[in-house]
Amino acid sequence: MIKTDILIIGAGPTGLFAVFEAGLLKLKCHIIDALPQPGGQLSELYPKKPIYDIPGFPEVKAGQLVDNLMEQIKSFQPGFTLGEKAQDIEKQEDGSFIVTTDHGTKHHAPIIAIAGGLGSFVPRKPPIANLSLFENKGVHYMVKDPEQFRDKSVVIAGGGDSALDWSIYLADIASEVTLVHRRNEFRGALESVDRVKELKDIGKIKLITPAEIVDVHGGEHLESVSIRMNNNPEEDFELDTDYFIPLFGLSPKLGPIADWGLEIEKNAIKVDNTLDYQTNIPGIYAIGDVNTYPGKLKLILCGFHEATLMCQSAFRRIHPDKRYVMKYTTVGGVTGFDGTRKEAPKAVIRSID
Amino acid sequence: MIKTDILIIGAGPTGLFAVFEAGLLKLKCHIIDALPQPGGQLSELYPKKPIYDIPGFPEVKAGQLVDNLMEQIKSFQPGFTLGEKAQDIEKQEDGSFIVTTDHGTKHHAPIIAIAGGLGSFVPRKPPIANLSLFENKGVHYMVKDPEQFRDKSVVIAGGGDSALDWSIYLADIASEVTLVHRRNEFRGALESVDRVKELKDIGKIKLITPAEIVDVHGGEHLESVSIRMNNNPEEDFELDTDYFIPLFGLSPKLGPIADWGLEIEKNAIKVDNTLDYQTNIPGIYAIGDVNTYPGKLKLILCGFHEATLMCQSAFRRIHPDKRYVMKYTTVGGVTGFDGTRKEAPKAVIRSID
Ligand SMILES: Cc1cc2nc3c(=O)[nH]c(=O)nc-3n(C[C@H](O)[C@H](O)[C@H](O)COP(=O)(O)OP(=O)(O)OC[C@H]3O[C@@H](n4cnc5c(N)ncnc54)[C@H](O)[C@@H]3O)c2cc1C
Ligand SMILES: Cc1cc2nc3c(=O)[nH]c(=O)nc-3n(C[C@H](O)[C@H](O)[C@H](O)COP(=O)(O)OP(=O)(O)OC[C@H]3O[C@@H](n4cnc5c(N)ncnc54)[C@H](O)[C@@H]3O)c2cc1C
Repeated sequence: MIKTDILIIGAGPTGLFAVFEAGLLKLKCHIIDALPQPGGQLSELYPKKPIYDIPGFPEVKAGQLVDNLMEQIKSFQPGFTLGEKAQDIEKQEDGSFIVTTDHGTKHHAPIIAIAGGLGSFVPRKPPIANLSLFENKGVHYMVKDPEQFRDKSVVIAGGGDSALDWSIYLADIASEVTLVHRRNEFRGALESVDRVKELKDIGKIKLITPAEIVDVHGGEHLESVSIRMNNNPEEDFELDTDYFIPLFGLSPKLGPIADWGLEIEKNAIKVDNTLDYQTNIPGIYAIGDVNTYPGKLKLILCGFHEATLMCQSAFRRIHPDKRYVMKYTTVGGVTGFDGTRKEAPKAVIRSID
Repeated sequence: MIKTDILIIGAGPTGLFAVFEAGLLKLKCHIIDALPQPGGQLSELYPKKPIYDIPGFPEVKAGQLVDNLMEQIKSFQPGFTLGEKAQDIEKQEDGSFIVTTDHGTKHHAPIIAIAGGLGSFVPRKPPIANLSLFENKGVHYMVKDPEQFRDKSVVIAGGGDSALDWSIYLADIASEVTLVHRRNEFRGALESVDRVKELKDIGKIKLITPAEIVDVHGGEHLESVSIRMNNNPEEDFELDTDYFIPLFGLSPKLGPIADWGLEIEKNAIKVDNTLDYQTNIPGIYAIGDVNTYPGKLKLILCGFHEATLMCQSAFRRIHPDKRYVMKYTTVGGVTGFDGTRKEAPKAVIRSID
């Protein structure tokens, strides 16, 4: 059982920054996310795109912002349960909660902060009859650990940035990368498209278009896929492969959280914005894109503010007797749980002669 | 008469970022600040100190954050009335407002956003009988335009960062810089103290300590100051000078705004945080350190959020009939009032062969 002070569901920018604000209050955090990497929408949907409305950044790439947030919270040593979806919640007698993921991992905390954005990212699966038989036995909808593909043969399907970028990445790791797309045209960042072309030209990526995977075969583990050639049905063939990774995008679904007894409005969790973004269940907060209140804006900078106020309230719940005096980071510095300390250089007092 | 859509009082981080959010909504802003430079507390009180809790910046110097914000809002061309204090407000029949500064400058806008922080910065004045006679006639409590001191003689009094830094800066501009401090010890950044020592050693700054200015003399304009030598009263003397700049710190005072009929609580303006940070007077908002509501935190990142929600509400007041559909900056880009345009590189759609 993983134990922490604040269990955060969702490793998007809001959940990540909550770790920092909690850390300033000496509260430890653990984050669950269905995705294999932190960053939420920013990492999954637009990592290479610039954002212009993060205060103090005239421009910052989404992926860079996530890296910066990870760096900012590092010394508060958050725990992560990645690639798992928070599924069930059970209130304990003492008012604390146990949250269990779809993989059965259990987490125990007095405070739950739902920073679930638009929901947990769920893969769009291609309509292939036997596909579910091989899930996690050769069929993967996202890449959690690229090393698992080392020296293996991999078939990737899809025509967008994810399919392009993972083909590029795995070209150096897998023994063979085959990219299958139902059209000849790919849609992605110019540099990714160009790079795939280069890798194809030197034989590091095999490109099969316009084509579709229509069947999967194997025993205990995936062994091959059937490929339909969209323009020449007589050329359909079967290809041996260790892995098949269909990358047709992930779409967010509020999912199990919708059944936790929280007040839901407009597909979001209703919170009390007059104080601390708490939900109708004491001890459960909702921050960032996942919540709604009058005037709500689904913006990154709003999630930062909500996370900050939420942590103050969590502190008061956890330590009802402690008096907390806020200190500016500039004045008080930042003391990490890893023993590191950042602080402003002190002014000197000295005579000049 | 200066006309604008949103008149912002206070050029601290909150007021500056409001310009950006207003700009996204195609609303123009003008800012009044009592200080000669933008940045509020960050520029006036701790420009060289690091801040650790700005989301996305593991560390950023306060002055750098202000520079970044100025860069971020540049294309929205805000107007500035600097070095003047917003003094009076008059509601017009059409519901708009005219705000007049202590210098008589008039500003007209349908929306007022008070981002006044802890108040307008008011200089701490030394207790010298005739001092007020020479205000703006040789006596200045802040440096608005350093060029005004070119080839003139200047006496600076004070022992902190401002006194040190302006002595250093003016050493290259003025014909003569004399720094007077009542102790031998200065209190400031190490590099500033060291630099003053260097400039003293090469004769570019004259240092007189421990000493105090006890009187000022002149006709239409300041001509000289009387200096008391704290350890050797028999060495007291009079020094001819064109300018005298006492730099004993600026302290914020809510000041005239307190008399504008706004509901005040804990020396701050009460706002409705359930929606848009409006005050009890429709059309007047209060954002950032200057406001109060249940759970309020006087943090920079909270001001950013408040400014953003406020601008949405201002938009609805100014354009009650327009339907506004929010577009992410990443998706819609940013179009400046100066004709510049920033936008994410578009994805390409192309075949690889
Ligand atoms: C193309 C695009 C451009 C954008 N541009 C901008 C912009 O310019 N400026 C701006 O401010 N905003 C922009 N946004 C919106 C911004 O991305 C969101 O406001 C932000 O991501 C919200 O952050 P969050 O942390 O609240 O949620 P998210 O980023 O959505 O992260 C939530 C995370 O929670 C996880 N999760 C949810 N439920 C569960 C569960 N049950 N178990 C496990 N994990 C779960 C999800 O997998 C996800 O990773 C843009 C969005 C898109 C799609
Ligand atoms: C030493 C120190 C360290 C700090 N460290 C941190 C930190 O680490 N993190 C953090 O988040 N915050 C920190 N703060 C607080 C932070 O500086 C404030 O939250 C922030 O400055 C508030 O911004 P603002 O724009 O609301 O107001 P301000 O920065 O106070 O700006 C308000 C401006 O309005 C002007 N003004 C007011 N009334 C009038 C008027 N009538 N006419 C004309 N002008 C007027 C003032 O002159 C001023 O320039 C620190 C503060 C100090 C002093």
